[in-house]
Amino acid sequence: MVPGLNTLGAAEIARRIAAGETSAEAVMEACIARITERDLEIGAFIEFDADRALASARAADRSETAGPLHGVPFAIKDIIDTVDFATGWGSPIYEGHQPPRNASCVEQFQRAGAIAVGKTVTTEFAYFHPGVTANPHNRDHTPGGSSSGSAASVADRMVPLAFGSQTAASLIRPAAYCGVLGYKASHGAFDLQGVMGLAPSLDTLGLLAREVEDLVLARSVLCGRSDRVPPDFDETPPRIALMRGPHWWDGSIEMRDVCQRALDHFAARSADVGELTHPEVFDRLTEHQATVMAFEAARSRIFEYSRYRDRISPQFCDLVETGLAVTRDMYLNALAERSRAMRQLETLFLDVDVILAPSAPGEAPEGLSATGDPLYSRGWTLLQVPCVSIPAGRGPKGLPLSVQAVGPLGNDDRLLAAVAWMHRQLREFI
Amino acid sequence: MVPGLNTLGAAEIARRIAAGETSAEAVMEACIARITERDLEIGAFIEFDADRALASARAADRSETAGPLHGVPFAIKDIIDTVDFATGWGSPIYEGHQPPRNASCVEQFQRAGAIAVGKTVTTEFAYFHPGVTANPHNRDHTPGGSSSGSAASVADRMVPLAFGSQTAASLIRPAAYCGVLGYKASHGAFDLQGVMGLAPSLDTLGLLAREVEDLVLARSVLCGRSDRVPPDFDETPPRIALMRGPHWWDGSIEMRDVCQRALDHFAARSADVGELTHPEVFDRLTEHQATVMAFEAARSRIFEYSRYRDRISPQFCDLVETGLAVTRDMYLNALAERSRAMRQLETLFLDVDVILAPSAPGEAPEGLSATGDPLYSRGWTLLQVPCVSIPAGRGPKGLPLSVQAVGPLGNDDRLLAAVAWMHRQLREFI
Repeated sequence: MVPGLNTLGAAEIARRIAAGETSAEAVMEACIARITERDLEIGAFIEFDADRALASARAADRSETAGPLHGVPFAIKDIIDTVDFATGWGSPIYEGHQPPRNASCVEQFQRAGAIAVGKTVTTEFAYFHPGVTANPHNRDHTPGGSSSGSAASVADRMVPLAFGSQTAASLIRPAAYCGVLGYKASHGAFDLQGVMGLAPSLDTLGLLAREVEDLVLARSVLCGRSDRVPPDFDETPPRIALMRGPHWWDGSIEMRDVCQRALDHFAARSADVGELTHPEVFDRLTEHQATVMAFEAARSRIFEYSRYRDRISPQFCDLVETGLAVTRDMYLNALAERSRAMRQLETLFLDVDVILAPSAPGEAPEGLSATGDPLYSRGWTLLQVPCVSIPAGRGPKGLPLSVQAVGPLGNDDRLLAAVAWMHRQLREFI
Repeated sequence: MVPGLNTLGAAEIARRIAAGETSAEAVMEACIARITERDLEIGAFIEFDADRALASARAADRSETAGPLHGVPFAIKDIIDTVDFATGWGSPIYEGHQPPRNASCVEQFQRAGAIAVGKTVTTEFAYFHPGVTANPHNRDHTPGGSSSGSAASVADRMVPLAFGSQTAASLIRPAAYCGVLGYKASHGAFDLQGVMGLAPSLDTLGLLAREVEDLVLARSVLCGRSDRVPPDFDETPPRIALMRGPHWWDGSIEMRDVCQRALDHFAARSADVGELTHPEVFDRLTEHQATVMAFEAARSRIFEYSRYRDRISPQFCDLVETGLAVTRDMYLNALAERSRAMRQLETLFLDVDVILAPSAPGEAPEGLSATGDPLYSRGWTLLQVPCVSIPAGRGPKGLPLSVQAVGPLGNDDRLLAAVAWMHRQLREFI
């Protein structure tokens, strides 16, 4: 076993394997060693198969063909169907359920040469009722949710890359709390076949990683080979505007401070920075997101609510009952307000490349019985825009703080290019 | 067994059971008798469980609670997950596969008191490779597809109501060929959890029925209890405009004739009728739909294509390979053209309630090795608008002809109200 290989990013792993500097087997051994050493404490994986992963890595080393993720270990949130692992949706109802096929995203990764290590802990049905995972930075604190295990496994260097999903704040929040990159794609950007649906107007697939180039690489695999090279901001730094948003004063002082400091830092690195006041229609987006989510979840999970109410958490029961009480007019009104806000946001992006916003209210809260407040993502998720949480230092308790970069709908390539620039600057500043 | 009960509509069955004029058991017996008598010839059902359906009907008769579909038999296209029946997606790969839950639409129907009779034949993965179903009006002719068994079972009076779905022309075309009502909802109107995805930008759940009030009733169950009563066109008939569309001259003479005759008939019944020229951007919608469908299907079915290529039909293989060859720019361009066309269509609906258009090129073609041409639905499906195929007489071979009513996106209630008026007029005229 070569120590340290588990700390490399996905693109770097693929490069070294292609150059013959290391092998898929050696990388996998390092990841397995890390998981074996740490996961009893962290609880990132609900299912993990070292033997199969190692066998796949050895097969990859013998293989003549090599995709862009050749030999790269990855982890999969347990709301995503896999033929090689059970898929339990974080619910006792489906514990041990074996799907007959892989979700498209899993198959796309495997076709590109990536190797699935296991399934990561999700909250129940990707909502709020937590699983067992602890924050790798401090095990008394939540890793955030619902993509809890995926964020923790990447943060703890068990794997370089993991699938997550977001309907409210399920990628951005755990990424922020665990101090890794969390990328929520534009709604509809990636195929969701085989990914459990919760609220289809909001559900989005995404990724946790430690390197921006890994997000770019993973995205190109999920899109099919991309026709364009993402634009590069090396010569002209991105135009970045801080939008404090309607919940600015509801978060912690360190949340506000990290946003302002990051903005100043970008300005010092010659970015064109400024502030944007949020449009008035944004004031109630959080509420509208909750309305849409409850209405749609009450329909998507009606089977479990009808048949297995005693095996559903009280939180989830509440969500369905709230949703059943939402009238159709309330739902349609929330969607109409969403459309209005989307149009206004589109015009704001004429003058800026990235909106900078809080990722989460602050450091990860203490306790594993809840996953923290989704307040800073609900609105953006409703607006369907691509978002990335970028680590930006530590708070008073020594836990990660982050900022959120938001881009225009459908232009994820450009957002990721801007995030690459931002991430480089923030690394120095940390 | 009371003869004739199998010919009643869903709403009428629910009314009679509620009034104590008949029982769920008697209705179910009539449907089962019809299926037993006819389905060896028609092949509408891939799975059918008379004992369970009868037991459920008897339980419904003993039950104290009664939903809006209490005691109503229905059938389910076999791309929709069911706990009581296997779900095979029309593919040998998934033959006999047993899902652990019901799709939301099935559960919503059952919560409303409806009783599932069985699963109906679909083409492979709801695309073009046909199943065994024959057209009940002439067994040498196709019933259309992909919702082949659902359309045939309703047309042949085996059930009053059946679920279908549409990605290209899979509801409208079989409805037209079998001479029943086919309703494709607005995209996103109904929850798709547990419904196989083919091309998510296009996939839409819908229903086959013989009565418009049954579509209204089923829709209210799927939406959750509706807050509004659909508007009624009894006093002021709808404003109806014929749009010949880019493929007018590609269809049969009887297709053109039935559209013109229907329009004249509506005019004679005091409807405000006219003609609309299709916007220029409509000229290539069929092509754009094919691009979007292939691109997305190549992603949603990548697992089957990668792992089971020898068990996939040549047609479906072609679809995936075509989709893999579609560049991202071609795909995004097709979506952009779709958006442009949607905006233009929205303004057309300021002056009319319904656009009248062909449903299919003419009568059902002879032979069971193909399901006919999707030409007259691809464009409307791409535009995500609600559509209803309405029977409108017979062609030279004695097979059904139909017309298609198209409404504005999201306003399915108003479209169905207009369709109720149109259906009444066409019944007299037939």
